[in-house]
Amino acid sequence: SVFGPVYAQAAPTIRWRLASSFPKSLDTIFGAADILAERVSQLTGGKFQIRTFPSGEIVPGLQVLDGVQQGTVEVGHTAMYYYVGKNLAMAFDTALPFGLNARQQNAWWYYGGGIEAIRDLLSDFNVINFPGGNTGAQMGGWWRKEISSLADLKGIKMRIPGIGGQVWSRLGVVPQAIAGGEIYPALERGTVDSAEWVGPYDDEKLGFYKVAKFYYYPGWWEPGPGLSFIVNVNEWKKLPKDYQLAFEAAAAEANVHMMAKYDAQNPPALQRLLKNGVKLRKFSNEILKAAQKAAFEIYEEEAAKNASFKKIYTPWKKFRDESYRVMAVHELGYEQFAFPGI
Amino acid sequence: SVFGPVYAQAAPTIRWRLASSFPKSLDTIFGAADILAERVSQLTGGKFQIRTFPSGEIVPGLQVLDGVQQGTVEVGHTAMYYYVGKNLAMAFDTALPFGLNARQQNAWWYYGGGIEAIRDLLSDFNVINFPGGNTGAQMGGWWRKEISSLADLKGIKMRIPGIGGQVWSRLGVVPQAIAGGEIYPALERGTVDSAEWVGPYDDEKLGFYKVAKFYYYPGWWEPGPGLSFIVNVNEWKKLPKDYQLAFEAAAAEANVHMMAKYDAQNPPALQRLLKNGVKLRKFSNEILKAAQKAAFEIYEEEAAKNASFKKIYTPWKKFRDESYRVMAVHELGYEQFAFPGI
Repeated sequence: SVFGPVYAQAAPTIRWRLASSFPKSLDTIFGAADILAERVSQLTGGKFQIRTFPSGEIVPGLQVLDGVQQGTVEVGHTAMYYYVGKNLAMAFDTALPFGLNARQQNAWWYYGGGIEAIRDLLSDFNVINFPGGNTGAQMGGWWRKEISSLADLKGIKMRIPGIGGQVWSRLGVVPQAIAGGEIYPALERGTVDSAEWVGPYDDEKLGFYKVAKFYYYPGWWEPGPGLSFIVNVNEWKKLPKDYQLAFEAAAAEANVHMMAKYDAQNPPALQRLLKNGVKLRKFSNEILKAAQKAAFEIYEEEAAKNASFKKIYTPWKKFRDESYRVMAVHELGYEQFAFPGI
Repeated sequence: SVFGPVYAQAAPTIRWRLASSFPKSLDTIFGAADILAERVSQLTGGKFQIRTFPSGEIVPGLQVLDGVQQGTVEVGHTAMYYYVGKNLAMAFDTALPFGLNARQQNAWWYYGGGIEAIRDLLSDFNVINFPGGNTGAQMGGWWRKEISSLADLKGIKMRIPGIGGQVWSRLGVVPQAIAGGEIYPALERGTVDSAEWVGPYDDEKLGFYKVAKFYYYPGWWEPGPGLSFIVNVNEWKKLPKDYQLAFEAAAAEANVHMMAKYDAQNPPALQRLLKNGVKLRKFSNEILKAAQKAAFEIYEEEAAKNASFKKIYTPWKKFRDESYRVMAVHELGYEQFAFPGI
């Protein structure tokens, strides 16, 4: 580079605080907010600064939406399904059991009307959303003993939040709400029989394999969970147009980078877990079929009583079904042959 | 927005020409260059303008690397495997038969040393590369008659370029090099027995289904072909640092958008093709196994005689094998259950 910065000295200095729903220990998810912040700064000659804060430092991780809505922070990085208590339709922005995988989530967001559908939903909350990452299909969690049939599930206590927990409960499981830091001791003491977290890279760090040997897959309740950046609408409107554009471009970059980073980190992590004696197990078809049936029963029940859920669900379901059929051909058709047996 | 542009009037005006390897009719691929150009303009207050040109308007589509190297254009959007004649290692930037899928390609590029490996390779060509899109796993092309066994392949004339063609030729197929616009008449007249192009959305537009009813999958020679933006190094060094950063961010955005757009477009396109009487067929395991064996024989032979190929191939193969094993668990494990039978 032969020139210095090209930005006018007159450009306004803007400082935002970003509240993440995630601890720094989930470095790939938390890191997506840092990617956003760094790029926004670079793209504005250092004039638009976003400082990132982990869960709990400014607002609790599960209250980031409220914090942004009220203007406690200007921006958040969160999973909108944390707020299904406000409206179950929030889950479309993140994941639904037997919903979209990571590529399908991007396709729906950017070219399937998804971003707009979520913006419409969030207009009541005074925030605007931008896709901001994905973990890929998660794992099915850590189990102290093997389960094979639906009968084995009765009374099982599982740490699992959200709609996934609702589906499991229809299969006889008793879902437990436990924060990340308390899962390990609960699993160790047997207060819970199983616990789900994310995938190999993040699960390894919490050491669950030391207290529960069976590592199940697939994590059907989160086939491609998406994260979003959410911005207070008043603050958004105050931004110079150029800063808005920089934010939007940086968010898209953080989105693709977070998925790529997980896809680079998970393979060696699972290799290490297997060397530590972890036993991989797949949920039986009996369990998967029952879970799938229960999931769509929940969606149909919700659609019957929640107009904003139905408004998103109907075209989303069509999008999902068409995409499943076609990815089964060109993507799955390849992978079923080429990916090794497990 | 309450402010106008914040950029200094003193910022230099820079105009680049981008040569795409693709015609405008491949609107999703060509469109990725437009996404880059538009965002770069936005991020520089309109000072850095990139004008996009389709294949053949400034340089022929298959000579974009040469055009950028020589400075005929400052930037290109291309598939580096068009240049395997210069070095077979160019294919790592795009696709190898039985290589990486789209997510794995991003993981390798951004977090697996891929971008750096390709930059090292391209340093001899005076260009610098940036990931710039993906089509996803392609289809296996249009065939005038069904093929089941290896014996059926003997003497089959197939329009297929590159390493995919080399692999097919080891199975008895006679690969043909035919430009996009000439494929339809060749298939109609029977000059070729089969032809591959991209996937449902692009294939539909060329109308191949009217002259060859059997649509095979998977396109094992391109499980996740990546496109790249390549920039002349001298021109790159002349850019203000801010413009370089804007280019880099916009390229990442174009990368994620191109894949998302295909994933939104392919499903309805395949539905339409099936309504037009297209018969989906899967390559038999016998053929897939023979092709996979031939592919890795080619790579091993090349690695034995081409040091720059071997330098990328060895860690790439390890990355690929680990990723295949792990995606077989959390991604394929889900999709095998949830995606419908075909």
